[in-house]
Amino acid sequence: MISPLAPKNGFPSLPEIKGVRFAALEAGVRYQGRKDVMLAELCAGTAVAGVFTRSATRAAPVLDCQEKLGADSSGGAAILVNSGNANAFTGAHGVASVKRVTQAVSDAVGVAENRVFTASTGVIGEVLPDDRITAKIGDLATSLDAGAIKDAADAIMTTDTFPKGCAAQTPSGIQIAGIAKGSGMIAPDMATMLVYIFTDAKISQPLLQQLLSDLTDRTFNAITVDSDTSTSDSLILAATGQSNAPEILEGSSDCDAFRTALHAVMLDLSHQVVKDGEGATKFVEVRVSGADTTADARRCGMAIANSPLVKTAVAGEDPNWGRIVMAVGKSGAKADRDLLSIRFGDVLVAEKGWVAESYSEDAGANYMKGENIVISVDLGLGSASDTVWTCDFTKRYIEINADYRS
Amino acid sequence: MISPLAPKNGFPSLPEIKGVRFAALEAGVRYQGRKDVMLAELCAGTAVAGVFTRSATRAAPVLDCQEKLGADSSGGAAILVNSGNANAFTGAHGVASVKRVTQAVSDAVGVAENRVFTASTGVIGEVLPDDRITAKIGDLATSLDAGAIKDAADAIMTTDTFPKGCAAQTPSGIQIAGIAKGSGMIAPDMATMLVYIFTDAKISQPLLQQLLSDLTDRTFNAITVDSDTSTSDSLILAATGQSNAPEILEGSSDCDAFRTALHAVMLDLSHQVVKDGEGATKFVEVRVSGADTTADARRCGMAIANSPLVKTAVAGEDPNWGRIVMAVGKSGAKADRDLLSIRFGDVLVAEKGWVAESYSEDAGANYMKGENIVISVDLGLGSASDTVWTCDFTKRYIEINADYRS
Repeated sequence: MISPLAPKNGFPSLPEIKGVRFAALEAGVRYQGRKDVMLAELCAGTAVAGVFTRSATRAAPVLDCQEKLGADSSGGAAILVNSGNANAFTGAHGVASVKRVTQAVSDAVGVAENRVFTASTGVIGEVLPDDRITAKIGDLATSLDAGAIKDAADAIMTTDTFPKGCAAQTPSGIQIAGIAKGSGMIAPDMATMLVYIFTDAKISQPLLQQLLSDLTDRTFNAITVDSDTSTSDSLILAATGQSNAPEILEGSSDCDAFRTALHAVMLDLSHQVVKDGEGATKFVEVRVSGADTTADARRCGMAIANSPLVKTAVAGEDPNWGRIVMAVGKSGAKADRDLLSIRFGDVLVAEKGWVAESYSEDAGANYMKGENIVISVDLGLGSASDTVWTCDFTKRYIEINADYRS
Repeated sequence: MISPLAPKNGFPSLPEIKGVRFAALEAGVRYQGRKDVMLAELCAGTAVAGVFTRSATRAAPVLDCQEKLGADSSGGAAILVNSGNANAFTGAHGVASVKRVTQAVSDAVGVAENRVFTASTGVIGEVLPDDRITAKIGDLATSLDAGAIKDAADAIMTTDTFPKGCAAQTPSGIQIAGIAKGSGMIAPDMATMLVYIFTDAKISQPLLQQLLSDLTDRTFNAITVDSDTSTSDSLILAATGQSNAPEILEGSSDCDAFRTALHAVMLDLSHQVVKDGEGATKFVEVRVSGADTTADARRCGMAIANSPLVKTAVAGEDPNWGRIVMAVGKSGAKADRDLLSIRFGDVLVAEKGWVAESYSEDAGANYMKGENIVISVDLGLGSASDTVWTCDFTKRYIEINADYRS
């Protein structure tokens, strides 16, 4: 069953990015009858930036990728991802699996081993049957195709109900295309589940990393489905340098344009992850303004976005603003009950510590029937603001997660 | 429908506490056909201690009670509680309501206004119809009865499916009896929903407050149903001094005995709140040991106890220890994946960063079929430990909370 919040026109048409080729195949890691392993080949000179989960129990492939960022980029690079098994909490077995897979990719694609980035997503705690993956790497390497990015997006899905992709280009013609997976265990900490973004921009690795880290905080780190943080969150941004546009330099107008385009892709992909949130029927934007500090605004927004009581009220189309007050109160952010105001969309619900005179329950209830809900909270204290995104919390989430593994 | 985790023998038989009388009536604040207001009268000389929510949006009665703690205790005191309306986020109206109610109780019972403690629990953001309460205070005052504590426990319920009570006595014959309400919005911060504990002990207010605050951290602050913190959490402990036992002095063996008995009552009541967690079908104890600090042990325990993915796995009777690993990882507590061990009951599930050799999925699955689940995590780092309690997360929670107000 595809999420009711999935893009109405399906997977978007993504441009080919010069210097990147994809392949995806069935390796039978866990799922049968569907592609579950993908390879991306990146040309010589590609700058690779990444952000990863800060979980203390992060998976072996994540630790491996973190070590490799910033490696010499004169040669090519490759990304290999499997779904169905996360290779997390698998001890020495997990490390050995990563080694075997990266070695096989290095041999087949002809890139240095320290330029092979892997990721695994799926069940935690089971040994990765890496022989099923290495057996397919030769076939993957010979079927690489610049136009196969949708196959890659399909292959990295787990409980996702639709593949996620997005593209943008700058006025100077630089192309950006990205794919993502994720629909549960979503409360990213420095990154989300799995995201791969490709661009033909010419840009240094340090600048690319800086842009990526800055934008992650306002996109993937600003979403939550269930407050649970994955052991495998990984976001990799690869810039092949094959565009005809001039090199992007820090502080230039080209850099601003690239940042804007990259932000658009990252924001759209992060929203697609929320829209595929397990059991989601509504997409919720939480805007907090008037906060003392940006950290307080984020804390307050996340307290609302993660509150089971707020999220079940949204599922029940109940304009239960009392639960918003509750979440603000528990957030730890500086707040004064009597300065607080709350809006559902354009409907002013509460101000100055009490329900607004103009508010009618009918107006609130009517607004909550929509598919896209905006909850705005003004703390009335300062000028800091932040926005985060989440989905509602339905019985379907419980169904999916009470039955996922057994 | 009464929670399947409710005490099998119903509400316990509680001793009368010398110096305390109760009354409860139907005032029709919100609910019809049930008692929704209760009065407790406390004799002259009663020491009153309390802990309250630290929510930044706490309700008017909470703020009022906090101001009154430590007031001169030569006269008597009273507690008035209504259910159905929380008188929270009601601005100046809320403050005026508290004033009118406490004034009426003061007049009817003959105690100083600054010794009348009130609480309101129920819907947030609607003006309290305090005239319906004040209209009943005369009747309440004339029907006070030392044996009516169960009526009081009934009157303070909201979505609770059973009234909660517990008693204990010390070897020297000091009696303690307490009641509690709460089943949703439970992630107390310094207190839980509403708890009232009475004892005939002779004890100074400062010592009583110190004991209460210490024990709250290990009982009511160590439970969570849904990670949401109420705006109204209040716990009041009243000591009438009417026991024949000698006064309790700090550091004495009598003080140790009183602390032990009080701890037992507070722990039992806090567990009853969890067992009436909205939609709960299983009671879960999370024990964390081997932590670097107690704060880390608590953080780790609460991350597990609040994780929707862990709680839905418990609901589905799925021994999904991978989600425990995930929660440890996201908790922010110092942890090393390769030192971690996990047990379900006595079943060793994982050790040294991977599934235990002795573990069989059948043993895990069989254990998860029970009603009382113990999850033990040893971080393998230090000697600090902590225990917290929660319940599972079922479709029924969603049903209750998607429909509660509308």
